[in-house]
Amino acid sequence: MSELLTKAKNAKLAAREIAKNSTEDKNKALLAISDGLRKNVDYLTSENKKDIESGRNQGLHDSLIDRLVLNQQRIIDMADALVQLTELNDPIGSVMEEWTRPNGLKIEKVRVPIGVIGMIYEARPNVTVDAASLSLKTSNAVLLRGSSSAIHSNKALEKVIHEALEGTNVPVEAVQLLEDTSRETAAKMFQLNEYLDVLIPRGGQKLINTVVKNSSIPVLETGAGNCHLYIDESADKNMAIEVAINAKTQRPSVCNAIETILIDQKWADKNGAELLSQLQEANVKIHGDDWTVKHAENVVPATEEDYATEYLDNIVAIKTVESVDEAIQHINTYGTSHSESIITENDAHAIQFLNEVDAAAVYHNASTRFTDGFEFGFGAEIGISTQKLHARGPMGLEALTSMKYQLHGEGQIK
Amino acid sequence: MSELLTKAKNAKLAAREIAKNSTEDKNKALLAISDGLRKNVDYLTSENKKDIESGRNQGLHDSLIDRLVLNQQRIIDMADALVQLTELNDPIGSVMEEWTRPNGLKIEKVRVPIGVIGMIYEARPNVTVDAASLSLKTSNAVLLRGSSSAIHSNKALEKVIHEALEGTNVPVEAVQLLEDTSRETAAKMFQLNEYLDVLIPRGGQKLINTVVKNSSIPVLETGAGNCHLYIDESADKNMAIEVAINAKTQRPSVCNAIETILIDQKWADKNGAELLSQLQEANVKIHGDDWTVKHAENVVPATEEDYATEYLDNIVAIKTVESVDEAIQHINTYGTSHSESIITENDAHAIQFLNEVDAAAVYHNASTRFTDGFEFGFGAEIGISTQKLHARGPMGLEALTSMKYQLHGEGQIK
Repeated sequence: MSELLTKAKNAKLAAREIAKNSTEDKNKALLAISDGLRKNVDYLTSENKKDIESGRNQGLHDSLIDRLVLNQQRIIDMADALVQLTELNDPIGSVMEEWTRPNGLKIEKVRVPIGVIGMIYEARPNVTVDAASLSLKTSNAVLLRGSSSAIHSNKALEKVIHEALEGTNVPVEAVQLLEDTSRETAAKMFQLNEYLDVLIPRGGQKLINTVVKNSSIPVLETGAGNCHLYIDESADKNMAIEVAINAKTQRPSVCNAIETILIDQKWADKNGAELLSQLQEANVKIHGDDWTVKHAENVVPATEEDYATEYLDNIVAIKTVESVDEAIQHINTYGTSHSESIITENDAHAIQFLNEVDAAAVYHNASTRFTDGFEFGFGAEIGISTQKLHARGPMGLEALTSMKYQLHGEGQIK
Repeated sequence: MSELLTKAKNAKLAAREIAKNSTEDKNKALLAISDGLRKNVDYLTSENKKDIESGRNQGLHDSLIDRLVLNQQRIIDMADALVQLTELNDPIGSVMEEWTRPNGLKIEKVRVPIGVIGMIYEARPNVTVDAASLSLKTSNAVLLRGSSSAIHSNKALEKVIHEALEGTNVPVEAVQLLEDTSRETAAKMFQLNEYLDVLIPRGGQKLINTVVKNSSIPVLETGAGNCHLYIDESADKNMAIEVAINAKTQRPSVCNAIETILIDQKWADKNGAELLSQLQEANVKIHGDDWTVKHAENVVPATEEDYATEYLDNIVAIKTVESVDEAIQHINTYGTSHSESIITENDAHAIQFLNEVDAAAVYHNASTRFTDGFEFGFGAEIGISTQKLHARGPMGLEALTSMKYQLHGEGQIK
């Protein structure tokens, strides 16, 4: 039997076992893994060096090499995150709703694990520990398919995790890494509906698209954020400028940073020049419409393509609009339904924007940079969903759970 | 542009509009459709006759012809169901959770429509009205792809729905039927991620598998029910027999009827013969293990295949087991995670069964026949989900909704 099929079958069996583990069992396992990481810093960094070296030999970009690196600090951070995870409530087993039917049948809606999670990800080896620990906390088994560029690091992390789990009640095979990182095997994995309950791709848009297009297993899709800030006519000048600078520049490479600023024409005529100059002082390159080109130096005329682009860089598109309706229309046309914000003192406009903009997170008078599981107070995050089914927006532990109905009767028949 | 692409684009635009409709707008539209159906009984039945005739000419089975039929009673039933739907709470816009972060950001989790629903279904023309009305009530647009065998009936129903919507605030294009029922067009529909947010297949297992295997759009999967009744050692004799007969015979053709009865060996030795004779009196054919063959006449020896079969008929497989563990193991091996029941007076066994059996609905001392949206009190049902993501078990109106986070700030930046 192939490695994939063997491990998928083992994962399904392990899922049944870990579903029976208590919260205490699971937290002990998380602490054991945390200790294992701390004790194995030397082993992990030396295995990691093999990946770094082979990455350098293959001419990987510095930014990619940086993502590959496991140094002492990063290992300690992972170990600390595991301890924090033990402090979060265990969602499994909680009764979400309960009611009794006229025939006396009592119905309880109970939170249960999903089963087997297939995780497909790119360079960062920390995802190995992230995915393993969040799956474990939610009583799921996980089958990890990392990239070949991180294979030594991932195998070393799996070894540390397995050694830690051996001393606990959690089955070792609840966490398994595929050593075969070929595309052919990944393609087979996408069709293993019998053993895998969900696939979670984490990485670039290309990886995510490949999984979405080719998987017959349900996918928890995370994805691009072409996010907008709309500055309404009545927006407070300082608030608007401060939020614009923050949402664009605080970390431009992330999905919840803004890519386009839409400005009400009247606000633009009054305060727009100051916004443009402050953006440029913050080293932001501007691609703008006619109004923008007229009101600042060094503005690249914006094209249709600009409005559809997630720059993930110190670049912003700027466009003036005549109304909140036009802003909503623009966002629903070019946006990726991630995070969208309106700055306004006009409550009617705020309500209209929050209701009519179709996105996971819609903000009134705040930066879009808060769309993540930690900022939302979930204490953990497996990714930010850009789809509408099962989970939308930041996904914490609950996104890794399913439910079942437990019905209690006294012999009811239909 | 193809019919599919034109209608998919229109659906996406209509989804934006219907999302703005009030509960009153939607209920008025549902009542208008209800009136339209009542007024058009003659037109609908005469169009339906064309499908019946061509079905007969093509040699369709009587059972399929029966599913195709739209007679006065069935039309009145659909019209009545629309009135009942107006009486259900509108889930859209309700605040599911709200909390405030330490930085003052107030987060509301609000129920919103999914967007555009693609419905793919077989002969029954009533699904056209069902899917249209449930989508409308939840502010979704729907693109209907029925079967060619029901095309005249479906077109007539769409015409009645459109005429009714014309006098309301709900956009006519919120409900559209594809006239092109070719497989090639269906295959293209499965890949229209840009316009469709979810696909719901309703029909036989072959149709559902085709959609699951070929769709890159998220699927709400409904499916087979290989359901079990486990009679534990301490089960009350009369309750066990009554539930077994009910769960098998009350309507054998449905997914929540049982297909296998597992019996604790000690209970079987005491009461099994009576169960077998009562099943046979109720015209149930028995496929059984060695014990069963020994304790009744006319028992077909059960094979491995029997345990994996959804008979959907007056046939039941019977197997004795040594323990609740063996019963759970059998169900988790052969079951389809639909509906499973234990009859027992032993609470520890009941709890173990409810927790460890992996199914959408698990029952203690009741018939599995209660797994449906009406019996659960949802007031409506779009199907019974056998998957674990988004919705599991009977799907009422809430299964047709998504959520968004609305965040209220005073200029918060990160």
